[in-house]
Amino acid sequence: MSRALQLARRGLYTTDPNPRVGCVVVRDGRIVGEGWHERAGGPHAEVHALRAAGERARGATAYVTLEPCSHHGRTPPCSEALIEAGVGRVVAGMEDPNPRVAGQGLARLEASGIATEAGVLAAESAALNPGFIQRMRSGRPFVRCKLAMSLDGRTALASGESQWITGPAARADVHRLRARSSAILTGSGTLLGDDPSLTARIEGLDGSAVLQPLRVVLDTRLVTPPSAKLLALPGHTLVLTGSDDSGRRRALEAAGAEVAVLPVRDDRLDPVDVLTLLGQREINEVMLEAGPTLAGAVLRAGLVDELVIYLAPHLLGDQARGLFHLPGLDTMADRVALTIEDIRAVGPDWRIRARVK
Amino acid sequence: MSRALQLARRGLYTTDPNPRVGCVVVRDGRIVGEGWHERAGGPHAEVHALRAAGERARGATAYVTLEPCSHHGRTPPCSEALIEAGVGRVVAGMEDPNPRVAGQGLARLEASGIATEAGVLAAESAALNPGFIQRMRSGRPFVRCKLAMSLDGRTALASGESQWITGPAARADVHRLRARSSAILTGSGTLLGDDPSLTARIEGLDGSAVLQPLRVVLDTRLVTPPSAKLLALPGHTLVLTGSDDSGRRRALEAAGAEVAVLPVRDDRLDPVDVLTLLGQREINEVMLEAGPTLAGAVLRAGLVDELVIYLAPHLLGDQARGLFHLPGLDTMADRVALTIEDIRAVGPDWRIRARVK
Repeated sequence: MSRALQLARRGLYTTDPNPRVGCVVVRDGRIVGEGWHERAGGPHAEVHALRAAGERARGATAYVTLEPCSHHGRTPPCSEALIEAGVGRVVAGMEDPNPRVAGQGLARLEASGIATEAGVLAAESAALNPGFIQRMRSGRPFVRCKLAMSLDGRTALASGESQWITGPAARADVHRLRARSSAILTGSGTLLGDDPSLTARIEGLDGSAVLQPLRVVLDTRLVTPPSAKLLALPGHTLVLTGSDDSGRRRALEAAGAEVAVLPVRDDRLDPVDVLTLLGQREINEVMLEAGPTLAGAVLRAGLVDELVIYLAPHLLGDQARGLFHLPGLDTMADRVALTIEDIRAVGPDWRIRARVK
Repeated sequence: MSRALQLARRGLYTTDPNPRVGCVVVRDGRIVGEGWHERAGGPHAEVHALRAAGERARGATAYVTLEPCSHHGRTPPCSEALIEAGVGRVVAGMEDPNPRVAGQGLARLEASGIATEAGVLAAESAALNPGFIQRMRSGRPFVRCKLAMSLDGRTALASGESQWITGPAARADVHRLRARSSAILTGSGTLLGDDPSLTARIEGLDGSAVLQPLRVVLDTRLVTPPSAKLLALPGHTLVLTGSDDSGRRRALEAAGAEVAVLPVRDDRLDPVDVLTLLGQREINEVMLEAGPTLAGAVLRAGLVDELVIYLAPHLLGDQARGLFHLPGLDTMADRVALTIEDIRAVGPDWRIRARVK
């Protein structure tokens, strides 16, 4: 299963909107076939592994990081392929996260006389696909909020100056996180202030090895200029707005953006509406790269799952800009509780991963 | 030398104003005597170790974390004791940090035909006594600024509410840092807001095992109330002020405080004056536990050597109070550069140690 997890990770940047899955076929204590899911529409991990195993799959054990599917999608169900190949036993890392179908793939195998087991290295298997799992369960994507801050918790000077707060190693790490994301979410304030690219560029990998994440701009009043840098870059940009200004909309569309209108509540777009829409569009992992107002609003709506904070060895002082605008947080009892999962050095900077409790 | 360092650390809470020093006497590959300096006025490490070795010291090698002294202070010079004991060789962790006397102890030994060596585990030897070394070299103490913050860099809510931002393990760690400090420095704002104790309490150690650090309150306008909690606690409190209000001064003195007057510059006490005074009073390590104004002023004066930040897994939002008030920091080029030396878990919190570059 460890090997299957390793294989699954090879699809980290390319399987969207599908999950990352790896499979290893073992017979008489030897690996006779292995595979992973690479691209939506392409063969699933099990099919690759069974093809590699050929006749040796008969009576073998298949280890797969996610329960084999039992439905006809873009490809025939993998449970059928496993039955046809004559495997003797199937071990799954975790069950299908969709509560309405969980266990049916394994049940189908059992009904054909194949022994099954699920939950082997379950946490590691789940960690491959936090977004896919969350979308299957809640309809909304997994949200990872990325921030770069000084040691005193500041993302930029009061003037907005912030470029290169962290070093090259941290920025390369950000690009890896972007590459595994289905979408990058930002606000019009960041767009106007920084004119960011929001693309995923990984040294040593060419463009085709990374599915460019959807760039999503929350822009209540449709102030995104058609000249914004990200509109001209490879990949797709979605501008979500509450404005019905058809002139601006046509200008943005002419510049390459897709524009969609959402309801305005309390003078802003509601993070729940935004993430529900992204879930409907099969977005698994969202990377939130935004200023304190939008980051704070998504956090207070309870929709941030993970924080990834890059800590630069500098101090900027208490007049500089903070991470989250959280109006109404007036007592310590209201503070937002986290679990810090991991802190590690990334060049001269440090990366903190935390879960929102 | 590793063993000598270990022994030296036993004096961490008690040697003030002297340095922590350990000594091991080795003959024929076996330890025949060891000792450490425990208290000012008591025997130095070498004397303890030589006493333990007795006649076996003759021809032996003495490992000592700091160059043996060559002057008559409260006790006779250790170089003489080593010569009298007839040791054959002396290995020192580091030379005497006082540039005016460095090397004289070793020279005295050499002149008596004893082989010497210095700089073995020099960094570790120096780390025992950052305050003593800095005071010998600059006349001012080593300043360690301690802060407890949320993950978004906030020490307290805007209301000032801050009690128990970190957990018991972090608080116990703070008490260990206080215990090794010669003085704890705070401002009248913190005193009025939190009425802190600023004592060092270490579980499992009784009061006599820890020299209580001097409590120093910077109080430009002499607003410290005679009812302040820390005035009634074991140990000594020094209130530094720019005020000549003799009535308030007498009231504080009656409550147990010592009051000293310093010049007022730009409407406040100058951190250089404060730390120079503390250096004259043989203060080695200062722990700065202050609000953003005083912490920022000492930092901007270039007088903070080390930051120890306890990071609590919470978010407080950008209206809450920051770490350092650094007015005039308007461009990224002005940011204060640090080297993060160490980040480790302390219960559910994390401790970051950083040096100011």
